[in-house]
Amino acid sequence: MAKTRRGIIGVDIGGTNIKTALVTGQKIIRRARTSTRAERGLKDSLSQIIKVVEPLCKDAKAIGIGIAGIIDSEKGTVKYSPNLKGWKNVPLGRILRAEFNLPVYVLNDVNAICLGEWKYGAGRRKKNVFLFTMGTGVGGGAICEGKLLFGAHGFAGEFGHTTIKLDGPKCTCGHSGHVERYAGAKYIVARARRKMAKRKSSLAKYDVLTPEKIACAAKSGDTVAREVFAEVGFYIGVGVANVIALFDPDIIIIAGGIAQAGRILFEPVRRTVSSMALGAEHRRHKIAPAQLGDDAGILGAALYAKLTIKGLTV
Amino acid sequence: MAKTRRGIIGVDIGGTNIKTALVTGQKIIRRARTSTRAERGLKDSLSQIIKVVEPLCKDAKAIGIGIAGIIDSEKGTVKYSPNLKGWKNVPLGRILRAEFNLPVYVLNDVNAICLGEWKYGAGRRKKNVFLFTMGTGVGGGAICEGKLLFGAHGFAGEFGHTTIKLDGPKCTCGHSGHVERYAGAKYIVARARRKMAKRKSSLAKYDVLTPEKIACAAKSGDTVAREVFAEVGFYIGVGVANVIALFDPDIIIIAGGIAQAGRILFEPVRRTVSSMALGAEHRRHKIAPAQLGDDAGILGAALYAKLTIKGLTV
Repeated sequence: MAKTRRGIIGVDIGGTNIKTALVTGQKIIRRARTSTRAERGLKDSLSQIIKVVEPLCKDAKAIGIGIAGIIDSEKGTVKYSPNLKGWKNVPLGRILRAEFNLPVYVLNDVNAICLGEWKYGAGRRKKNVFLFTMGTGVGGGAICEGKLLFGAHGFAGEFGHTTIKLDGPKCTCGHSGHVERYAGAKYIVARARRKMAKRKSSLAKYDVLTPEKIACAAKSGDTVAREVFAEVGFYIGVGVANVIALFDPDIIIIAGGIAQAGRILFEPVRRTVSSMALGAEHRRHKIAPAQLGDDAGILGAALYAKLTIKGLTV
Repeated sequence: MAKTRRGIIGVDIGGTNIKTALVTGQKIIRRARTSTRAERGLKDSLSQIIKVVEPLCKDAKAIGIGIAGIIDSEKGTVKYSPNLKGWKNVPLGRILRAEFNLPVYVLNDVNAICLGEWKYGAGRRKKNVFLFTMGTGVGGGAICEGKLLFGAHGFAGEFGHTTIKLDGPKCTCGHSGHVERYAGAKYIVARARRKMAKRKSSLAKYDVLTPEKIACAAKSGDTVAREVFAEVGFYIGVGVANVIALFDPDIIIIAGGIAQAGRILFEPVRRTVSSMALGAEHRRHKIAPAQLGDDAGILGAALYAKLTIKGLTV
């Protein structure tokens, strides 16, 4: 007789790694990970997914997958994924359903993180949550009145590509003055480099600079690094004030490694928001770091599968 | 025996007029209106509301009220209303319930318009709608995944006070480069005046200028007026591209008298959005004028009461 299948598989497909785990609720039962082999194209990364998920399947009743890009969650199709070569209109849900004979649900990776943090992390018991991730890019997701906002094309929450300074510098996407142009990792580093060219800084000892290293230096009192975060935090704050004007969330959650930098990042963001958000005196919004780290995407993807299989909307 | 009370009263409280009607669904059975007497303070405007609503009550089973400002819809309290003198923390729901012995539901006026247009107007059968009104101010509201977005403090959808040009000119609220600073009525007029000071225009014949008159002149080929709308439409388009990035709505609805200006307004908005919205090639968003005119607020407020009394969320 078959054992009761009690877990759900959460999968987080990134440009570099595929992370997966068998979970029940917030509890992780068994983990697995492998490289995505994104540069080798669709067929290779598909077989990587199958290889890493397969061993978990016998104890699972469903699979939830978070993946970067434009996702049609109703069909389980990846319309387009910027970090995965050759992924265009891939019926990922159908392919894995055929492979594993399990129900498969697919959503955008940042939406998965947003679901995870909402249910188990910094957004617990809140009705309105906006989350954004700081990394190479700046993505986002929203819980509106207790429901995940997919939007008309599975493309809501693109915080990084909102314009805050029309005549500002050009973003990777070609447009000017986007939040990502100030808060994306390479732009944070470039800001530090510009200042380092003119002034002494403890950052000079690094060949490769990252926002995390700059945050460390800032905490140790390096004035160049401090200035970088004061400025980056200001621009993020302007973007967050827009999000508050439009969504009026209970909490704004910042995810990604750099969100753990603490006051160095949050202090200028909060100060800017307090001075810029419309009707700030009538609101009690919280701006806080994510709590689940790398697990948010896996837990959120599994939660999405769990709720959808029950016929609940998320 | 009492007659069956079959209608719901919708009320739209503005800074100048109170408009109300007994409605069933989209059908208006009987209308009434009076002046708000906002300048005389809370007591006077309250008795105006009671006076105009009272005659409709005997056929009504509930009252829904849309009113400008920050509204706590759960409590039925008007926390603050910018256009009504002395309205601060007014328990409007409780006051009218005591007066009429009917259930009373209160929401922000633009949220009421948004509900009305979603159910009966330009947003019919859409799951994700963003609506904004162009008038003295620029307000907004959102339907997310089929639910009205109230937000944490009843303050979502404030499109007019989103920043698109950090170093832009100062808005009434004190901050710079807000959408309202470009699209609010007085700023549209001021833009025309600046151009008229340098060049000939058919607008010179008016003592009092309004966006509607400028739109008429633009349609008749006046180049100053055309330029005004090209520029205003561009800035609105930048703001709308931000809304699309964040909400990914099926449709963006523009309400308010000037939204009836047609191509003169919509063409530059659409052109800007097509060039600026992230992943525009993957989206089919519609940008369209509101359809219900002045009735949207009344119908939406009544709908809010109807759904809430049934225990349905909106």
